[in-house]
Amino acid sequence: MKFTCSQQSLSKALNTVSKAVTTRTTIPILKGILLETEGSQLKLAASDLDLSIEKRIDVDVKEEGSLVVSSRLFSDIIRKLPGADVEIEEMENNTVIIRCLASEFTIVGQPADEFPNIGDVGEDQRLLFNKELFKDMVKKTSFAASIDESKGIIVGVLIDMTADGLTMVALDGFRMAITREVVKNEEEKKIVISARILNEICKIISDSDESDDISLILDEKRAVVLADQTKIVLRLLEGEFIKYRDILPKEHRTRVTVGKSDLLSSIERASLLAKEGKNNLIKISVGDGTLTITSRSEEGNVKEEVAIVRDGEDLEIGFNSKYVLDVLKAVSDDEVAMEFNNSVSPCLVKPVEGDAYEYLILPVRISGN
Amino acid sequence: MKFTCSQQSLSKALNTVSKAVTTRTTIPILKGILLETEGSQLKLAASDLDLSIEKRIDVDVKEEGSLVVSSRLFSDIIRKLPGADVEIEEMENNTVIIRCLASEFTIVGQPADEFPNIGDVGEDQRLLFNKELFKDMVKKTSFAASIDESKGIIVGVLIDMTADGLTMVALDGFRMAITREVVKNEEEKKIVISARILNEICKIISDSDESDDISLILDEKRAVVLADQTKIVLRLLEGEFIKYRDILPKEHRTRVTVGKSDLLSSIERASLLAKEGKNNLIKISVGDGTLTITSRSEEGNVKEEVAIVRDGEDLEIGFNSKYVLDVLKAVSDDEVAMEFNNSVSPCLVKPVEGDAYEYLILPVRISGN
Repeated sequence: MKFTCSQQSLSKALNTVSKAVTTRTTIPILKGILLETEGSQLKLAASDLDLSIEKRIDVDVKEEGSLVVSSRLFSDIIRKLPGADVEIEEMENNTVIIRCLASEFTIVGQPADEFPNIGDVGEDQRLLFNKELFKDMVKKTSFAASIDESKGIIVGVLIDMTADGLTMVALDGFRMAITREVVKNEEEKKIVISARILNEICKIISDSDESDDISLILDEKRAVVLADQTKIVLRLLEGEFIKYRDILPKEHRTRVTVGKSDLLSSIERASLLAKEGKNNLIKISVGDGTLTITSRSEEGNVKEEVAIVRDGEDLEIGFNSKYVLDVLKAVSDDEVAMEFNNSVSPCLVKPVEGDAYEYLILPVRISGN
Repeated sequence: MKFTCSQQSLSKALNTVSKAVTTRTTIPILKGILLETEGSQLKLAASDLDLSIEKRIDVDVKEEGSLVVSSRLFSDIIRKLPGADVEIEEMENNTVIIRCLASEFTIVGQPADEFPNIGDVGEDQRLLFNKELFKDMVKKTSFAASIDESKGIIVGVLIDMTADGLTMVALDGFRMAITREVVKNEEEKKIVISARILNEICKIISDSDESDDISLILDEKRAVVLADQTKIVLRLLEGEFIKYRDILPKEHRTRVTVGKSDLLSSIERASLLAKEGKNNLIKISVGDGTLTITSRSEEGNVKEEVAIVRDGEDLEIGFNSKYVLDVLKAVSDDEVAMEFNNSVSPCLVKPVEGDAYEYLILPVRISGN
């Protein structure tokens, strides 16, 4: 294998594919990046078995071939080279010479045939998403997924495509996030993808800025995300996702409309005294025109008041402030509506109009206090 | 104690004095900040016993008094309050009420009389420094001081004032940094201040941007740095500093002039293969017109060439690349001169003209290779 390419394009491609390299693996070849010539292109590939990334860049191929190099060392070297042409040449015993102006590195590689075969995904279905919409919906949903890998399917985000809409859902037993967009879909489909991997995908497709859309190609067990010259292969999570519509409360006895920034700042301040050993407990009292947030710890106590419009009954309810803050940080609206039934039923946070998102937060039982 | 002030000025002052609060102390009162009214001002003070900081801000004093509050909690609360007037009121049992718009915090403080007395420093001498010059010289020198607190005076930087110059010196047994500026001093004086504390002082005086100068007030054992409304009290290091002039080589057999950025980039790249268990060993070969840097590890090897102008003999010499990189990063010149005697004698890095700085780097013995 021998090729020449620009330092910038090689460095950028390494930055993308190295996101699939895990340092926690005990399989040495997975710490590597596969370099393989394909016609007048170089294919770079990395995989942690859950997630695989391939990227192609144009290079000047002088000799065909393939080899695996250490992701960390090779990326560090290429990144620190001057912005000029780089020549990569395979020598005997899997060594590679990297030349660029007055720099010459010789590093030890591994044979390409030990690299895991990412394989092809049968194209049962191909779906098209607007990139920015997809990223925005993932950002507003994925934080609510469980981070406990032993919890099965709830580490994933449900992507639910119907004829006229796209819905994403994540939950962890303490809160649930639902985002909806009106999108015309030719086919109906439900898939579940690990929230961790979805967030990685969003980072990767942010780097590839040539196209506004991404394609999702599906077969029974796997999905391929295609964005420009980048191909991401991932496992779909198996099993049936929770019937999220059944969990949503059908009615409410108290409804509050509140400025999001004011509420966010007040809860952030109240959390300063809700940190240690108390599950970030804050107490919210809904009164006529005012929502009062209180919290106390050994260090002191705090009372915050926020102006609201209230419909329905007064209410006292306790929350883990982290769950409320996560929701308020994810929302981009200036005002939100909060719907309550009583102090032991979940609270629903939604837009003042419509249902572009619904966030369900379980309360924490509060003592008489 | 009761006063009102702007959230911004209180938050800024807390940010400054909290730099003297250590989290590693076992003395609870040292995790606090002293608040004390003085006429129409509030004095804020913190101390880790090595370093004490006092700052004064204008406030509207309604009742005189003093109290110690938790640095972390009080600073967090004030920082997160809205940008409006804040009222601080001392209540019974050392509690403090903090009011700002619709927020009300009650936190537990400690009596002011338990706070260590920072005390007064007798004014034996007062010296004036240009703030930017002082910061620049500290930055270019302090990195070479020892970080091993058991090593005595070499954890400090020597500040050597003569009638017509200011010199700062630091060394750790492997390298030495000297910076010189032409400054007219009315008095001659040598003091040694901990490099760690000097760097803290530079951060603190960067925040106070009203004046171009700082004053240094000295007595036998302590110094006070005055910058605007900020007063920093510190212990001087005792003992005699190493006679640094005696260590500087008087002559050289090889002199090299080299572009600093090229040399820095080449050594950074060569260091990628000099990282593990090899003391960052790089080998430098000085030839006619070219300086060659090589390094090798189990992962591979590297050769870098840099164009130079050479006077004198060829030379091969080994270095811990970290020490060379530290020097090249500290220098702001485009070109530097390097002077060598042989492969076991230290290298001197200095300006192509003059002696505004001199960096001495000890070599690492290299085998035949």
